[in-house]
Amino acid sequence: MSTEIGKKKHTILTGDRPTGPLHLGHYVGSLRKRVELQYQHKTFVMIADAQALTDNAENPEKVRRNILEVALDYLAVGIDPKATTIFIQSLVPELTELTMYYLNLVTVSRLQRNPTVKEEIKQRGFGASIPAGFLAYPVSQAADITAFRADMVPAGEDQLPMIEQTNEIVRSFNRIYQCSVLVEAKALLSNVSRLPGTDGKGKMSKSLGNVISLSDSADVVRQKVKTMYTDPKHLRVEDPGTVEGNPVFAYLDAFDPDKEGLEAMKDHYRRGGLGDIAVKRRLQEVLSAELDPIRARREDFANDPETVMRILKEGTAAAREVAAKTLNEVRKAMRIDYFANE
Amino acid sequence: MSTEIGKKKHTILTGDRPTGPLHLGHYVGSLRKRVELQYQHKTFVMIADAQALTDNAENPEKVRRNILEVALDYLAVGIDPKATTIFIQSLVPELTELTMYYLNLVTVSRLQRNPTVKEEIKQRGFGASIPAGFLAYPVSQAADITAFRADMVPAGEDQLPMIEQTNEIVRSFNRIYQCSVLVEAKALLSNVSRLPGTDGKGKMSKSLGNVISLSDSADVVRQKVKTMYTDPKHLRVEDPGTVEGNPVFAYLDAFDPDKEGLEAMKDHYRRGGLGDIAVKRRLQEVLSAELDPIRARREDFANDPETVMRILKEGTAAAREVAAKTLNEVRKAMRIDYFANE
Repeated sequence: MSTEIGKKKHTILTGDRPTGPLHLGHYVGSLRKRVELQYQHKTFVMIADAQALTDNAENPEKVRRNILEVALDYLAVGIDPKATTIFIQSLVPELTELTMYYLNLVTVSRLQRNPTVKEEIKQRGFGASIPAGFLAYPVSQAADITAFRADMVPAGEDQLPMIEQTNEIVRSFNRIYQCSVLVEAKALLSNVSRLPGTDGKGKMSKSLGNVISLSDSADVVRQKVKTMYTDPKHLRVEDPGTVEGNPVFAYLDAFDPDKEGLEAMKDHYRRGGLGDIAVKRRLQEVLSAELDPIRARREDFANDPETVMRILKEGTAAAREVAAKTLNEVRKAMRIDYFANE
Repeated sequence: MSTEIGKKKHTILTGDRPTGPLHLGHYVGSLRKRVELQYQHKTFVMIADAQALTDNAENPEKVRRNILEVALDYLAVGIDPKATTIFIQSLVPELTELTMYYLNLVTVSRLQRNPTVKEEIKQRGFGASIPAGFLAYPVSQAADITAFRADMVPAGEDQLPMIEQTNEIVRSFNRIYQCSVLVEAKALLSNVSRLPGTDGKGKMSKSLGNVISLSDSADVVRQKVKTMYTDPKHLRVEDPGTVEGNPVFAYLDAFDPDKEGLEAMKDHYRRGGLGDIAVKRRLQEVLSAELDPIRARREDFANDPETVMRILKEGTAAAREVAAKTLNEVRKAMRIDYFANE
């Protein structure tokens, strides 16, 4: 496992569940990196609607609605459909076929032991009612990764067991069917720290209302920064303030290009004499510089849904072609390519 | 649940795992019935290779080899490709996509409680190493049944929990997605008693060597009947013999068209004075009358593999069309038919 991607040209698979608008956490944690890597490596970005349905089966409308939103977010931040294949997971049915074959290579107890799945089951409060599709999603993810022969998968530390599960399937498959059709993947660990919620809580969550979405208007962003949590003990301007755990500074760390100026500001804040209003003003400037062009591009694309649909359609067709090629080789290796020679 | 199929035109789905040649047990238990029903009802017969792989992942060659053998058995007994759609499961990928959506509607614990699956897990000696695909196979079966809108599924008593699982999925799906796309199925229970092995053991099993296969030559059948288990206490011709639990009579029950003559023979055997050799001679005659034409048709088809392959190809294409239609409606009901209106 490595955070280094190096000079070699890799194939990268990444993506998002379309269950809500993407926010600054996604931007800092992954979107920015994707934009940076897309011209150097072969990149597939998947809108994981089928995966979203594993715990949203009763709410497909939410998933449907967010597909376009996520696509707009992608295009807005600069994911370039000429360089990156953006596709909709459920429209690549080859992935379900691969999943079914891989399910035979994994035991139920192995899936139940997966730490990521265990944690997510706890978070979602499934109790004893775990949807079978949810338990199976690491296998579905293995299908996604291997279908595109991705050898590099951007991931957080908490996602490492998922990649390990993929690689176990890869090794089982290649061993059982005596082939080298499937490719192991490495995690590309993010080297940026996770952006906290605007309320200073560790986790950003739409339901907690503590996120700044890429689709938020300039007014909404201003309002959210204005009411952002800071150091609760920093009551008067002249008081010394705390930078650590102060989300305003965490956001400045992530977005302010003037690192020297930022360090000076932090010192001033720590000493006392620098008010929250002044620090937030700087954050407003910095966010505005970052988000205004994104918002403008987003609006352009939102006004041209035909183009967005065309991009998704073409990306999905291109992704299908690659997945179908892998599936053919998988079937051949499994010796179930019955009519292949005709 | 009913053994009566009545006058209404039904859609029937049935099939076999291609893991070995079909034998007289299959013939008496299901094949004969399929031939009888095929002109009255819409019949789909599935060669369930994908299902066979759930517990034969390490032995795909066995599955591959037996696809042609099972197809030959079907054609030999009189399954008529003009009336019955014979298809290969894994070549209808729509089934895997349906399976993945249905997996989200079933809990892991529900699958673990399925009595048929529990029993089969015990039989196969999986212990704690249950392949996830094996646990999921009732869901895959639900996909098979619903894809063809089968409302009638020939089944043994032990398969009833599988049909119940299908109907639970049908009801969940139609309720959640507020539609009536999926159709519930009824079991068509077999009214014939199960044929015992030639060794008098209850269960026929290729590995026990106690089956007469449809592909056995006339010589092999003669030899198997000759060494067939009878009443071990019936030592001399003049001794009274027992008919119950005597496999020779069980086979005569299943195959002898002269029911009156058979009853007379049973009486004679019970009284004493009728030797095993005479009874077996009658069974040879009866089996020969039944199996000779089957064997002849089997040889004809075996000598013409192109025709068999064409039948499988055309059947599979026809099956795919029906499954794709259902899948389209499923996606529409789930509101994930994103590009449908273009």
